[in-house]
Amino acid sequence: MLLLHRAMVLRLQQACRLKAVHLRLCIQACSTNESFQPQRPSLTSGDNSSTRGWRVMGTLLGLGAVLAYQDHRCRAAQESTHIYTKEEVSSHTSPETGIWVTLGSEVFDVTEFVDLHPGGPSKLMLAAGGPLEPFWALYAVHNQSHVRELLAQYKIGELNPEDKVAPTVETSDPYADDPVRHPALKVNSQRPFNAEPPPELLTENYITPNPIFFTRNHLPVPNVDPDSYRLHVVGAPGGQSLSLSLDDLHKFPKYEITVTLQCAGNRRSEMTQVKEVKGLEWRTGAISTARWGGARLCDVLAQAGHQLCETEAHVCFEGLDSDPTGTAYGASIPLARAMDPEAEVLLAYEMNGQPLPRDHGFPVRVVVPGVVGARHVKWLGRVSVQPEESYSHWQRCDYKGFSPSVDWDTVDFDSAPSIQELPVQSAITEPQDGETVESGEVTIKGYAWSGGGRAVIRVDVSLDGGLTWQVAELDGEEQRPRKAWAWRLWQLQVPVPAGQKELNIVCKAVDDGYNVQPDTVAPIWNLRGVLSNAWHRVHVHVAP
Amino acid sequence: MLLLHRAMVLRLQQACRLKAVHLRLCIQACSTNESFQPQRPSLTSGDNSSTRGWRVMGTLLGLGAVLAYQDHRCRAAQESTHIYTKEEVSSHTSPETGIWVTLGSEVFDVTEFVDLHPGGPSKLMLAAGGPLEPFWALYAVHNQSHVRELLAQYKIGELNPEDKVAPTVETSDPYADDPVRHPALKVNSQRPFNAEPPPELLTENYITPNPIFFTRNHLPVPNVDPDSYRLHVVGAPGGQSLSLSLDDLHKFPKYEITVTLQCAGNRRSEMTQVKEVKGLEWRTGAISTARWGGARLCDVLAQAGHQLCETEAHVCFEGLDSDPTGTAYGASIPLARAMDPEAEVLLAYEMNGQPLPRDHGFPVRVVVPGVVGARHVKWLGRVSVQPEESYSHWQRCDYKGFSPSVDWDTVDFDSAPSIQELPVQSAITEPQDGETVESGEVTIKGYAWSGGGRAVIRVDVSLDGGLTWQVAELDGEEQRPRKAWAWRLWQLQVPVPAGQKELNIVCKAVDDGYNVQPDTVAPIWNLRGVLSNAWHRVHVHVAP
Repeated sequence: MLLLHRAMVLRLQQACRLKAVHLRLCIQACSTNESFQPQRPSLTSGDNSSTRGWRVMGTLLGLGAVLAYQDHRCRAAQESTHIYTKEEVSSHTSPETGIWVTLGSEVFDVTEFVDLHPGGPSKLMLAAGGPLEPFWALYAVHNQSHVRELLAQYKIGELNPEDKVAPTVETSDPYADDPVRHPALKVNSQRPFNAEPPPELLTENYITPNPIFFTRNHLPVPNVDPDSYRLHVVGAPGGQSLSLSLDDLHKFPKYEITVTLQCAGNRRSEMTQVKEVKGLEWRTGAISTARWGGARLCDVLAQAGHQLCETEAHVCFEGLDSDPTGTAYGASIPLARAMDPEAEVLLAYEMNGQPLPRDHGFPVRVVVPGVVGARHVKWLGRVSVQPEESYSHWQRCDYKGFSPSVDWDTVDFDSAPSIQELPVQSAITEPQDGETVESGEVTIKGYAWSGGGRAVIRVDVSLDGGLTWQVAELDGEEQRPRKAWAWRLWQLQVPVPAGQKELNIVCKAVDDGYNVQPDTVAPIWNLRGVLSNAWHRVHVHVAP
Repeated sequence: MLLLHRAMVLRLQQACRLKAVHLRLCIQACSTNESFQPQRPSLTSGDNSSTRGWRVMGTLLGLGAVLAYQDHRCRAAQESTHIYTKEEVSSHTSPETGIWVTLGSEVFDVTEFVDLHPGGPSKLMLAAGGPLEPFWALYAVHNQSHVRELLAQYKIGELNPEDKVAPTVETSDPYADDPVRHPALKVNSQRPFNAEPPPELLTENYITPNPIFFTRNHLPVPNVDPDSYRLHVVGAPGGQSLSLSLDDLHKFPKYEITVTLQCAGNRRSEMTQVKEVKGLEWRTGAISTARWGGARLCDVLAQAGHQLCETEAHVCFEGLDSDPTGTAYGASIPLARAMDPEAEVLLAYEMNGQPLPRDHGFPVRVVVPGVVGARHVKWLGRVSVQPEESYSHWQRCDYKGFSPSVDWDTVDFDSAPSIQELPVQSAITEPQDGETVESGEVTIKGYAWSGGGRAVIRVDVSLDGGLTWQVAELDGEEQRPRKAWAWRLWQLQVPVPAGQKELNIVCKAVDDGYNVQPDTVAPIWNLRGVLSNAWHRVHVHVAP
C-alpha cells in the first residue's frame, strides 16, 4: 500500500509539473486496499499555493481530472449512443488509434486520461482494448463512486450486445475445459497454459493477487469435484494408507505461511539471447508470492505411519493432471525435508484466503518453501514414500542444471541432481528495458529472493552497468531466520547523473549465506535454460 | 594417494622423455601412505622395451636416479667432510646458487635431482635451504631405505654443530610461548600467527595433515594444562551449570566427522588487487580439511538443561586466548544450529586422530560444519546461551559482508548480518599463476567447497578465460545429503590447444542449491576483503 502511495505521489508530481514547488505531501498509509480512504493531506509548498495542492490531491483521487477535463463531459454525452464491436474496441490500444476500454457494456476513450492515471500510465495501458473489470478486481481502490464518475466523462458508446455472449467451447480439445484467465497475464503458451504477470504489476503488491499469480501448467487443468476428491497417502510398512477427503484434510491443524514460488525457467528469455535453449520464454515474471493455508505434510505423513529413517528416502507426489497416455505429472522431495516441521511443507488448500484457483491446483497442491516450483505439485492425487526420487520425467529428465558445454547430444540427465533449492535471484521491474526515464531522479524497483529459506540481506543497484553500486531499500515483510520463504521487494530513488543520455541499470542480490548472483548469463547458460540468475540488466534512455 | 601416483607417472613421462613410446603404466593404488610399497607395474609399450620400463619405475622409486647419476657418488664422497652453517645452507635455494637441503646433521646438494623428484620439483623446492624432516614427516613414502640411499649420493657435507642448538626464547614477548610451526607454511603474520599451506601441498591430500593445516590466530596461543582444564557451560534457568574436565568431555558419546574449515578471508589477496582492504593477505590456502573427533555440542547443552526455544537465541563461545586487556576471543552461532543433531556441531578434542595441536585449539575447540572458520572458537573456555549474538568484536564488528560502495567512513556494522554459512568456493592449486606448462597436455587441480552442508555438484574449468568450459572430475569423498561438510578435490587432464602460447585457466564450482561463483572480484569487493569467491584465474605460459 505504501508502495502504491509512493507511486501515486511520484506520478502526481510528474503529471502536474509541480516539482519546482517542492511540495511535501504527507499521506498516511492505509493498511489494506479495502480500507483505502482519502486522507487530508498536509501540504507545505514554497509558494503556499494550497489551492493548487488540493487540485493535485484531487487528481490523485480522480477529482483533478474532473476539474481539468470538464470539456469531456459534453463530448462524452454526444457520443454515448454509438455501438462498437469488441473487435473495434480491441484495435484501440495506442495514442495514435486512441486508447479504449470497456466496463460492463460501456465503451470509453481514455486516451487523454492515460497520463493522469494515478497508478501510472503503464498500468492503465494493460487494459487497453479490453475490459477494465479484471484490473479493477485486483485494485479495489477503483471501486469508489468518484472513480466511476470520472470514467463516465470518457464514455463514447456501448458494446455490441452480441459480443457479450461467451465464446463457444470446442469439446474435443483437451484444454477446452481450462479456466478463464486474467487478461493482464503475458501468455507464453496457451496449451498447456503458461503465463506471467507483467513486471509493472508483479511488484505492485507484496502478495501477488491470485488472478495474476504466474501459472506454470504442464498439462490440461483437471476439473476436480471437491466432494468426491480423495488424496491417497500410501502408508508406511505397518502403517495405514489414507484416503483423505477435503474435510479430512481440514481436520489437521491448519498452518498459514507466505511463500514465494519461482519456476526454474524464470528469466529464461535472457539465456535464449546467448544461445537457443528448449523451454518457454519466461521473462522476469515466473515468480509470485502468496499466503498459503493448509495441513503440514509432516502431520499427514505421520498419520500414515511414516517417520524419518537413517537411509535417504523421498516423498513422491502425483498430480491429477495427466497426458493422453494417462501419465500424471509427478515430482519428489527428500523425506528429510518433508518430515522436518521447520521446513513447513504444506498440503495447501487455500491461497490468499481463497480456495485454490483451478490454475493453481484446486483443491490441493503441495507447497515446498524455498524449493523450485516444479516440486509444488498441483491437483495432488497421491503421496508415497520411496527409496528413490520420483521416476517422473519432470524429476529425472528435466529441471536439472548442466555446464554450458553440455548439449542435447552429450547430456546425461543422471549426472546432475534434480533442482530443489534455488539460488539467489533478483530482477528489476521498473523501469523496463528500452523505456525513457525523466532526467532528475529515477526510481528503480524490483524483487529479490533466495531458495532454502535463505533471507535476502542486500540488493546492490548500479546505473553504470556494474562499475559502481548503491544499496537499495528493502521493502516487504522481514523474514524469519532460516525460514525466509518469501521475497523482498526493493527500491532505490536516485538522481540521474547530469548529462547522462542513457543508463545501464543492473541489480544483484546477496542472501544470508552470502551467496551472490553471477555477473553474466553465458557462463551459466544451460541447454534447458533453467537457473537464469545472472545480474538483471535494463537499458533505458534519459529524457532530454 | 591416487593423485600422488598420477603426478608421479606424469612427471616420470616428462623426465624420461618416454612419451613417444606410448607407455601404459597400470599401477595399483595404495590405500594409505604408510602402506606404500612398490607394485610390479604392468607395462605395455610400442617397442616392448620392458627393461626401459623398469628403469622408469626405478626412477619413480628413486632407483632410476641411482642409474642415471652414478657419477654423483664420487663427488659426494669427496665433499662429505665440509662443514656448513645453517645460514650458508639457507642461501642455496635456486638453480643458480645450487639447491641445498639438510637431513639431521647432513647437508645435500639436490640441484640436479630437483627435476627428477617423483612428487614434482615444486614440492622439493619447498624444503630448499632447510631441513627435509618436516616434509618427510608429512609424506611417509620417504621413510624407506632406498630413498635414503638415493639422498646419500647428493651429500656435500655436515651442518655446523652449533647450529643445531634451539634458538633462545625472548620471554617478554606474549607470543614467545607460541608453538613451533611447520616450515612449509606460508606465513602471513607471525604475531598473531597466521599461515597457510602452499597450493601444491594443499590438495595433495584429501585430509590436510595437521602440521600444514592453515592457522588463523587472533591472539597469542594459550598454553593450557590439560589436567586442570575446565570447560564452563552456563546452565539454563532451572538447569545446572557444568564445569567439564577433558575426562568429563570424553564421557559424552564421541562423534567423528570430516569437516573443511575456511577463513572468511581466504583469497583476500585477489581483492587487494582491485582496491586496498584491511586484512591478512591470504592466497588460496586459508582452507583445510580434517577429521574431527569430540562430543556433540547439543549433548553438552542438553546436559546443562538447554533446549530449543521459540524465540531466536544464540550460543556464545569464549576462547582462553585473550588480549593484553584480558578480553577473550569470542563468537556465537544460532541456538537452532547448536541444538540440531543434524548440524553435527562438535566440541572437538581430536584432529585427525591426534589431540588438537596447540595452534588448532588444544585441548578443545568448536567445530561448526558448513560455517565460517571464525565461529570455530579455539581453546574453548566458556559456553553460554544468550538472547543476542556474542558481543565480541569479531562477531559484531568484523566478519561481515558489505556492498563495494561501503568504505570505512560509511560502514555500519549493525547493518549486515554476521557471516555464518559461506558461499560456494573453488580454486586452482595446480598449475600456479605464472608457471610454464608443457605443451601437449596439462593437468589442472584444485578444490571446491560450499557452506551450509551444500554439496559441490560440478566444477567447470576453462582454458580461455571463461569463453568455453569443460567439466572437471570430482575426487575425494562423496558427501552426505545436506551434510556436505567437506570439500571435493578435482582435476582435469586436458590437451593444450595447438599453437597456444599461454592459457587463462579459470575454475568455478556449483553447489547443490545451484549457487555459483560470481565472474569477477570487483563487484563483490568489500572493505574487509572477506567472501572472496569469484572465479579463480591462473595465467600460465605454454612451453614452446
